[in-house]
Amino acid sequence: MVGGGQLARMTHEAGIPLGIRFKLLSDTPQDSAAQVVSDVVIGDYRDLATLREFARGCDVITFDHEHVPTEHLRALEADGIPVRPGPDALVHAQDKGVMRAKLDALGAPCPRHRIVKDPQDVAAFAEEGDGFPVILKTVRGGYDGKGVWFVRSAADAAEPFKAGVPVLAEEKVDFVRELAANVVRSPHGQAVAYPVVESQQVDGVCDTVIAPAPDLSEELAGRAQELALRIADELGVVGHLAVELFETVDGRILVNELAMRPHNSGHWTQDGAVTSQFANHVRAVLDLPLGDPRPRAKWTVMANVLGGDYPDMYQAYLHCMARDPQLKIHMYGKDVKPGRKVGHVNTYGDDLADVLDRARHAAAYLRGTITE
Amino acid sequence: MVGGGQLARMTHEAGIPLGIRFKLLSDTPQDSAAQVVSDVVIGDYRDLATLREFARGCDVITFDHEHVPTEHLRALEADGIPVRPGPDALVHAQDKGVMRAKLDALGAPCPRHRIVKDPQDVAAFAEEGDGFPVILKTVRGGYDGKGVWFVRSAADAAEPFKAGVPVLAEEKVDFVRELAANVVRSPHGQAVAYPVVESQQVDGVCDTVIAPAPDLSEELAGRAQELALRIADELGVVGHLAVELFETVDGRILVNELAMRPHNSGHWTQDGAVTSQFANHVRAVLDLPLGDPRPRAKWTVMANVLGGDYPDMYQAYLHCMARDPQLKIHMYGKDVKPGRKVGHVNTYGDDLADVLDRARHAAAYLRGTITE
Repeated sequence: MVGGGQLARMTHEAGIPLGIRFKLLSDTPQDSAAQVVSDVVIGDYRDLATLREFARGCDVITFDHEHVPTEHLRALEADGIPVRPGPDALVHAQDKGVMRAKLDALGAPCPRHRIVKDPQDVAAFAEEGDGFPVILKTVRGGYDGKGVWFVRSAADAAEPFKAGVPVLAEEKVDFVRELAANVVRSPHGQAVAYPVVESQQVDGVCDTVIAPAPDLSEELAGRAQELALRIADELGVVGHLAVELFETVDGRILVNELAMRPHNSGHWTQDGAVTSQFANHVRAVLDLPLGDPRPRAKWTVMANVLGGDYPDMYQAYLHCMARDPQLKIHMYGKDVKPGRKVGHVNTYGDDLADVLDRARHAAAYLRGTITE
Repeated sequence: MVGGGQLARMTHEAGIPLGIRFKLLSDTPQDSAAQVVSDVVIGDYRDLATLREFARGCDVITFDHEHVPTEHLRALEADGIPVRPGPDALVHAQDKGVMRAKLDALGAPCPRHRIVKDPQDVAAFAEEGDGFPVILKTVRGGYDGKGVWFVRSAADAAEPFKAGVPVLAEEKVDFVRELAANVVRSPHGQAVAYPVVESQQVDGVCDTVIAPAPDLSEELAGRAQELALRIADELGVVGHLAVELFETVDGRILVNELAMRPHNSGHWTQDGAVTSQFANHVRAVLDLPLGDPRPRAKWTVMANVLGGDYPDMYQAYLHCMARDPQLKIHMYGKDVKPGRKVGHVNTYGDDLADVLDRARHAAAYLRGTITE
């Protein structure tokens, strides 16, 4: 796996019972996954020679993030190393312009959008629809709210163009909530769909995920799962695909983003599903039969733990474990910095209000925003 | 953790979400746990200098097995390294003579027993009760049926004395089945009890575990849990304690063996309990609050996967995953040798017959004793 973040850490954890020999390419020995994996190569994933050296002896290459240059992935494939997801699929998660063009071609429902060339063009894009505000995104390099701008006027729209990367304009969707449809697909075409979840963002960062999405009609849930399965198939995705969706005020679903790797909206599966997204990602990239994606509890809630003002979470960690013996804590081994994702918690049970309350309490207590 | 076997492998797996930095002392780099742990020291646990070097920088030492010499554990404690379980507790799992004497002192129910000095003394022991057969055990060094003899006459009883280790004689108990009461205890005295399970042995090796033990009266289950909690407390155990029990024809429970580490009879907890034995062992040795030991399913069954005649299990592994997408496979990364424990499977559900059948089918198919 290329990339030493928490997704690699949790993928290794899931691979241990499968008997997988896991090899990691990590930027530093302190990275989240590098702390817990036996076979670690330290190096820069942007360097092709490093990637080639790393790939020697690997049966298959997969990723903790989407930042490996497409041309490097093609070079690895030319060397005969299976890359999963492959570059032709992954480019749709790397480049939002390519993604939108492909989804349009598939007839997948998207927010109104087009590539814009300057602030005047942004104003024109606004005029073509309901006017400002407009969302601007650099087509490459963004995540967790980075590389995304909420723009109220042409005068406001200069910043996104400074990076010299093409800029995608999208209508501001009038949504009631965000959903995610997560699926896993194998090279031989087997696929499984997890229950559709509700994802709640705070300041552009995923805060809470509720599985399954409350009060979602079976019809809309089925449509979202079918859409995600179709995208996975049409794009030739291998591994986990997260399709982030808007549920609109008028009852439609629109594709917001695609991610081709284990995803924050699927962390609940570690404790809430028969087979976790991490285990199924491993099974898919190794072309093993996939595991059952069904939920084990009526409700599962995931809450992200962000760093707060105090670097030492230990006392809070003790408190949360003592307060709720059913709490499932997942720490990433990262130094605590304000706003940094350093872990998550999962809770599950029959009573959604209770399950939500326990997850939110633990996340807030660990962050230090509450002390009781 | 001292010892690189599968228990250390699965303890590391359980420690990852807790954010634990896990350091391993392993005999070889190929050992089950050494394949998946980042921080591995290769060395001999029987050598005090190696242990001392390994222990430097550890917050606490715990064990994958019970073979570290008691005097070495005392030396580490004298160096100021917390050893959990400590030598005064662990000796009861290392020496069956010490264990029996202590359990007698506690009034814990045991099979009739005493240390015997030669075959004539074995005959005398038999005469004191219901005669032959008699079970003989060397007080140290046995496991999985090794170091244990089933003796039908004094003439049969020479072998156990050849090792020069004291020999314990025990009556052959007329039992209906074997049970295990598993508990976890913290340094500050918090303790949790898992449901009492039924353990089925084949040729002296654990074959299947059913959680909870079917048709066990609440009264007897409660008595077994109380007994295990009392033993953990009186012996000052820290970490996981497995109390292997006989359920006798006349409705009593008798202590067969003690193990102070995660135990084969607790592997079902990985997929069948809110908190696994491995996670709770880690939490106990680090004096973290313990997790909920309650079951997540009505029935969970664990079946051990032993090596068969074919060294390559890969096709069988594919078959089992494809046949049963709910099957939870746990492989140890070990070379397959006939009769060697190389993994286990867990199944769970509401219908015991189905859950048992799925676990046994997978274990037999992986071993190669069935092909359909």
